[in-house]
Amino acid sequence: MTKESKEGITVSKSKDISEWYSQVVQKAEMADYSPVMGCMIIRPNVYSVWEKIRDYFDERLKLHNVRNAYFPLFIPESFFKKEAEHAKGFSPEVAWIANKDEDTKERLAIRLTSETIIYDSYSKWIRSWRDLPLKINQWANVVRWETTSTKPFLRTREFLWQEGHCVHATKDECEKETQLWVEEYKKLCEDLLAIPVLMGKKTEMEKFAGADYTLTIEAIMPDGRALQMGTTHNLGQGFSKSFGISFLDEDSKKQTPYQNSWGVSTRLIGGVILAHGDDRGLVLPPRIASIKGAVVPIFFEKTKKATLKEAKKVYNSLNKKFDMILDDREQYSAGWRFGEWEMKGVPIRIELGPKDIEKNQVVMVRRDTGKKEFVKTKDVEKRFSELLEEIQANLLKEAKKSLKESIVTVSNKKELAKAIKDKKVAKMNFCNTKKCEEKIKEETKASSRCIIKETSGKCANCNSKAEVEIYFSRSY
Amino acid sequence: MTKESKEGITVSKSKDISEWYSQVVQKAEMADYSPVMGCMIIRPNVYSVWEKIRDYFDERLKLHNVRNAYFPLFIPESFFKKEAEHAKGFSPEVAWIANKDEDTKERLAIRLTSETIIYDSYSKWIRSWRDLPLKINQWANVVRWETTSTKPFLRTREFLWQEGHCVHATKDECEKETQLWVEEYKKLCEDLLAIPVLMGKKTEMEKFAGADYTLTIEAIMPDGRALQMGTTHNLGQGFSKSFGISFLDEDSKKQTPYQNSWGVSTRLIGGVILAHGDDRGLVLPPRIASIKGAVVPIFFEKTKKATLKEAKKVYNSLNKKFDMILDDREQYSAGWRFGEWEMKGVPIRIELGPKDIEKNQVVMVRRDTGKKEFVKTKDVEKRFSELLEEIQANLLKEAKKSLKESIVTVSNKKELAKAIKDKKVAKMNFCNTKKCEEKIKEETKASSRCIIKETSGKCANCNSKAEVEIYFSRSY
Repeated sequence: MTKESKEGITVSKSKDISEWYSQVVQKAEMADYSPVMGCMIIRPNVYSVWEKIRDYFDERLKLHNVRNAYFPLFIPESFFKKEAEHAKGFSPEVAWIANKDEDTKERLAIRLTSETIIYDSYSKWIRSWRDLPLKINQWANVVRWETTSTKPFLRTREFLWQEGHCVHATKDECEKETQLWVEEYKKLCEDLLAIPVLMGKKTEMEKFAGADYTLTIEAIMPDGRALQMGTTHNLGQGFSKSFGISFLDEDSKKQTPYQNSWGVSTRLIGGVILAHGDDRGLVLPPRIASIKGAVVPIFFEKTKKATLKEAKKVYNSLNKKFDMILDDREQYSAGWRFGEWEMKGVPIRIELGPKDIEKNQVVMVRRDTGKKEFVKTKDVEKRFSELLEEIQANLLKEAKKSLKESIVTVSNKKELAKAIKDKKVAKMNFCNTKKCEEKIKEETKASSRCIIKETSGKCANCNSKAEVEIYFSRSY
Repeated sequence: MTKESKEGITVSKSKDISEWYSQVVQKAEMADYSPVMGCMIIRPNVYSVWEKIRDYFDERLKLHNVRNAYFPLFIPESFFKKEAEHAKGFSPEVAWIANKDEDTKERLAIRLTSETIIYDSYSKWIRSWRDLPLKINQWANVVRWETTSTKPFLRTREFLWQEGHCVHATKDECEKETQLWVEEYKKLCEDLLAIPVLMGKKTEMEKFAGADYTLTIEAIMPDGRALQMGTTHNLGQGFSKSFGISFLDEDSKKQTPYQNSWGVSTRLIGGVILAHGDDRGLVLPPRIASIKGAVVPIFFEKTKKATLKEAKKVYNSLNKKFDMILDDREQYSAGWRFGEWEMKGVPIRIELGPKDIEKNQVVMVRRDTGKKEFVKTKDVEKRFSELLEEIQANLLKEAKKSLKESIVTVSNKKELAKAIKDKKVAKMNFCNTKKCEEKIKEETKASSRCIIKETSGKCANCNSKAEVEIYFSRSY
């Protein structure tokens, strides 16, 4: 037990979410600031959440015949520069290594994303229509030399992610897969993380450098700021052409394939913390909690032995099916131990004192609502299992409600400014020009999140002809 | 299907194992040389092997209460230099990044191993005896800027590994755990990879830079060269002292804890290739093969439809329990398809032609021995399952035989030189001095592998008093 977990959070989430976030990350022992600026240490309590996300998503990858591989951390400068837009977009964030490649004397970048190093291989591996589709994913660390301020999980110089890279023979197939993966991400967020998202296309200004277009899912945090949770990029033929990827079709004609890439990162964990946490600490949706429940016996001098015996019984019976913890540390008060597991986001606490034993019951306390209920000893397993489902469902329900409430439809400049000032997401008609988008950012600090659909009417900001309906908000 | 897999290996493993290795790695689509010198691309066919190793070992970690976490890729120069021996040992292999930490203006190294960055955190996390033992593992990529020639899996500038880092209150507990993990590695090699190993202590010259002592497991490859498969380091109190890690014991007295670290890497895959492969390609022990069997129907114009139907039946029934592949590509001959799955090391091939269908049978071909057997359709599942076990056991049996045959006891300089020249491992009495060890290396190119036990008698090389019995051999 380390010292920092012994105190609660000293600010309210609703008052100062930024300070609240820093404290909960530290006090729930999720991450530590690294001695290297902008990097983080992912501690076991929350690394296990990343493993749950990985295991879940690995199954989805397998289902869609995507195979895992691993490509080098280093990217030669010449590769990096092959796709002009891509190089331009990512240049400010490159970490270069001081050692040079002895063969080529080239500078080497640390991967920020692996399109360039992977597509060089693809240009060698792909020869015929029979090699397509080629669908590969990697789980890896990436480095982006952020110069703005960083925050664990939300924005860090090094983070963990998965990046999928697929090559298709036809434009249509490529588009379908670009859509498929953004939908998979949405499903992951809702089913696993209990976070509903907005889904749509990025504007030209916000799309991935080098892509034809980018699809995104955006979660809205309690402070009204959007968190981009995952993106899929339809790369069209741009990278294929830059990297000389081609294939012979069934008529032995040379063709240029279509590509997409897509990724989610440890940023998802930041989303979970912000979306569900409260003033007592972290709240983990049961499906990603590595510890589903903590059994905390309440000790009194005379009944200690009997209480511990009963607590062990409850723990053992549940632990066969669920990952449980038995917190029988006598040196800490019951209240202190309750606080410990609340801080760490364990979905259900089971309290057990001498009076409960007399009554053949335990007390189950839900982390999400704090609601207590008495459960007869014989029903413990059944009720525990049900409660986990109820908590998972309730967190999603609450988050959906919050998302709905955060969206405000606006039809003019004044309403737009007010919505952003009120920490809302503005839903509006938009001319979809770079000039107008930059103007909004300048005036309100809000950026475009995603295009909902094409539309007509007038742009809420500049009054010229609207092209699309879109969300604007501040963002992480 | 890519071009390179269409041809067999053009040299014999016994004639030129180095060229054989390069070819099998490429032709079985295991790895590609990266455009960055000394780095490799781990392709899906063999990345899945790494996943099997990870899943197996993750279970062992969990069993022993070690938790996974993730620490930064970058290590500040001042950390790197804190433990003097460690810094000295690893300095030649550091890759530095060109960007500097804006806060500290320090140079940043890319991790070669994470003792220093992890132990800085430990110094903050550990306060009391209650925090011990602290047992953390990470799965990560590491970079060692090798200047000697590299080979995929065996020696590369970037590789994947796990590194365990544990802190204990007592010397005794720390020693026991150092032993525990080397035994776990031995078990992993034998049970999972079917590779028997020699186990023992490294000499002072060969131990980990900064450790009190290093335990190692060494596999002997068919060319008589040793491959270090895994090491555990008892770090004693050296790093604890350098990094200011201390704890208050039960009497509130300040104490310095004991530490160990241990790791295995993607090098294990190199061991699998070398140990089991043959002139037809890769041979994978069933437990690490992601595809357990390939069903290959033999097509004739008239019976094609019926054969395919029956092949699908066999495939479907087996695929419920085992990961199978159905290779029904009509554009390739049966022989070509046989060769494909042999090259990729699939443990069992199931051939099925019209005559087999008439006889209600299939042909099962073992990858390890090439032995064919006819199996009645109704027995397919049972026999397939048995065969996988038999192959796994046979590979270990053969490797054990080979290991035994490779060891020669020598008692003088001449015998030592001959043993090494004959591509054997020399078992001998040794004075255990740096001078004599260097002399042997200079004269025979063999290095010490591991100490078997203390002994008396005379050193086989220099005739002075022997301290230990030891293995010497050439190595990878």
